[in-house]
Amino acid sequence: MSWVPQAGADSGFGVTHLPYGVVVAGGRRRPAVRIGDRALDLAGAEATGLLAAGGAFQDRTSLDPFLAAGPPAWQRVRERITGLLTDPAARPRVEPLLLPLGEPVLPFQVADYVDFYSSEHHAANVGRIFRPDQPPLLPNWKHLPVGYHGRAGTVVVSGTPVTRPCGQRRPASAGGPPGFGPSTRLDIEAEVGFVVGVPSRLGEPVPVDRFIEHVFGVALVNDWSARDLQAWEYQPLGPFLGKSFATSVGAWVTPLAALAGAWVPAPGQDPPVLDYLREPDRRGLALALTVRWNGTVVSSPPFAGMYWTPAQQLAHLTVNGASLRTGDLFASGTVSGPDRREVGSFLELTWGGTEPVRLADGTERTFLADGDTVTISGTAPAAGGGRLTLAEVTGTVLPARC
Amino acid sequence: MSWVPQAGADSGFGVTHLPYGVVVAGGRRRPAVRIGDRALDLAGAEATGLLAAGGAFQDRTSLDPFLAAGPPAWQRVRERITGLLTDPAARPRVEPLLLPLGEPVLPFQVADYVDFYSSEHHAANVGRIFRPDQPPLLPNWKHLPVGYHGRAGTVVVSGTPVTRPCGQRRPASAGGPPGFGPSTRLDIEAEVGFVVGVPSRLGEPVPVDRFIEHVFGVALVNDWSARDLQAWEYQPLGPFLGKSFATSVGAWVTPLAALAGAWVPAPGQDPPVLDYLREPDRRGLALALTVRWNGTVVSSPPFAGMYWTPAQQLAHLTVNGASLRTGDLFASGTVSGPDRREVGSFLELTWGGTEPVRLADGTERTFLADGDTVTISGTAPAAGGGRLTLAEVTGTVLPARC
Repeated sequence: MSWVPQAGADSGFGVTHLPYGVVVAGGRRRPAVRIGDRALDLAGAEATGLLAAGGAFQDRTSLDPFLAAGPPAWQRVRERITGLLTDPAARPRVEPLLLPLGEPVLPFQVADYVDFYSSEHHAANVGRIFRPDQPPLLPNWKHLPVGYHGRAGTVVVSGTPVTRPCGQRRPASAGGPPGFGPSTRLDIEAEVGFVVGVPSRLGEPVPVDRFIEHVFGVALVNDWSARDLQAWEYQPLGPFLGKSFATSVGAWVTPLAALAGAWVPAPGQDPPVLDYLREPDRRGLALALTVRWNGTVVSSPPFAGMYWTPAQQLAHLTVNGASLRTGDLFASGTVSGPDRREVGSFLELTWGGTEPVRLADGTERTFLADGDTVTISGTAPAAGGGRLTLAEVTGTVLPARC
Repeated sequence: MSWVPQAGADSGFGVTHLPYGVVVAGGRRRPAVRIGDRALDLAGAEATGLLAAGGAFQDRTSLDPFLAAGPPAWQRVRERITGLLTDPAARPRVEPLLLPLGEPVLPFQVADYVDFYSSEHHAANVGRIFRPDQPPLLPNWKHLPVGYHGRAGTVVVSGTPVTRPCGQRRPASAGGPPGFGPSTRLDIEAEVGFVVGVPSRLGEPVPVDRFIEHVFGVALVNDWSARDLQAWEYQPLGPFLGKSFATSVGAWVTPLAALAGAWVPAPGQDPPVLDYLREPDRRGLALALTVRWNGTVVSSPPFAGMYWTPAQQLAHLTVNGASLRTGDLFASGTVSGPDRREVGSFLELTWGGTEPVRLADGTERTFLADGDTVTISGTAPAAGGGRLTLAEVTGTVLPARC
């Protein structure tokens, strides 16, 4: 139990959580850890000698050096911070370092951004909507976690407005000129992102059992998607402008150490996977997501049922020898459960835009309207009971500029 | 004419060229400009007051600050360096700053890497090889420059060995388990890369006529490709592990200012393109590429005939509001001319691996063997006559580790 006010276990941000982020204080960015609705200034804690972190925080403006420091350092720092925030004797020296949360700031430099496609329900729904006369899953889907690279430079922090993208659409008649204008099918994808801390060497795959040696933590992701742009452009090289205008990520990264109580058995896989994807102990994370559309809860995607685990995603991503860098972000792909009220995209929620949903204000939607706000939140079981609150990822749609 | 020995116009690296890179001297990386077979230490030139560059070079370890400085700074620095290297009176002070080229070093931090697909001959060849019963070009190809994001973290400098990737292959029989092992169809793609200097703001497209306000220069690219991995994984989200193991780039970036004499009219486009892709004065670069396979010239791809120009690629890349960062690299896609001896990939050269090529040592190849070396070189017309030599991009294949 922390001595910080309003930072009990029921706050979602008690001492069993302690996610990392960056706050702006005195015009400078400072690495910080969240406790309740306050941020402990880790740059200040290191500068004043309260925290020994090998220079990971002092005079730093992002989490990158700490992410690169690796599991033993992550554990030492977490233990020390826990001590500082629970020991009443430390309060006089620590309390002056508690800062307001302020405006969210992107906490690390995104190196490469990879987006997977690992929910069987989502992939099957997309197949049924777009290829109703064919098997819902493509032949490779159960053999490898399908994924692609997105645009790292347009990953933005929660709260950043998202301008509706303009672009080309499929011609109204085959052979005719393509349409152009603001996207008319602007969508979300509720996802869980994994943040790489420890790099790997080029040419050396990261085996499936070395996941925890490289991955630091978890953040919620909204992979905004313009379905009309995507549908026209994606053959044969995949999504490009339909995704690259913005990807939003939560401001606070929950360390895997805080999720020790959230691991659950992952779904079985049939057919059997190749050796490099085989896990003796398949584990998923029992994260419960919630999607709010202008405040109305429209969906509650369950992360525990994902077909491909994050450890399998990382093993696949590197099996060709691709190296990892500190700050690599790989996201799960849209999280969808079996029920319509558990899907992570509006494409699925409205079944391709054919079945509108009604919001609390009485209006109806298929895809996003200008001014709409989408907020994805999430919780996880805490090791000592209760639940952690994952930092939300929210964004409001601004009108197109074309 | 420069006073530097062996740096005449016929060297390919005379004073009308002056590409930028980074050299290692005294254990430290230093921004430099290449003249003949020497490198002028720009960090030293700025430190000693010979060159006023606003801190773009002194104590810097990459070209990034200079790339971000923008066209007026690029022009001032180029003019000053030209003066220093041509004025005999400057020689006593400049000559001590001439360093050996040494081992190549990646000259800038690659922010996002985008790969286009802009040669009509290449796209049509690929279509004919893989979809012989269908039209060679997909419906979107002549309406937009098809592209996708690659892995920025595995862009390596020329000379870096490339480990043959391992990965999944299509099942031998439909419904059976996929194959796994070292790629058996390891290929190259000879491309021309464009390096972004000046960033743009999120939500604000870069119009087709603002290309020169953002793009600094050009480097040759080899987008190594594992065709067997790619063929199995790419549906529906595009290439991933078939590309992400390595992309090689030349060590010296030729500034657009050196290519003033290389612009030629670009091919006409039919059907007409949408307004945001329309250029009043369509221009391509008359770069002549050469592909050597273990020393044997196997192909001479002409860049001038590319269907989509780099200015169109940049306008398309940003039309959805995606922002640019300093160090963004976008590559043309495989450069192929109409003739079999003008193609930029071995897939085309050997027509899907069915028509082996004979190398000078009498051996035959379809795809790459372990130990093979591929070198892509290029030249461009110089403004004052003669030709510039683009820095080559070379790499040797190491055996797989699986």
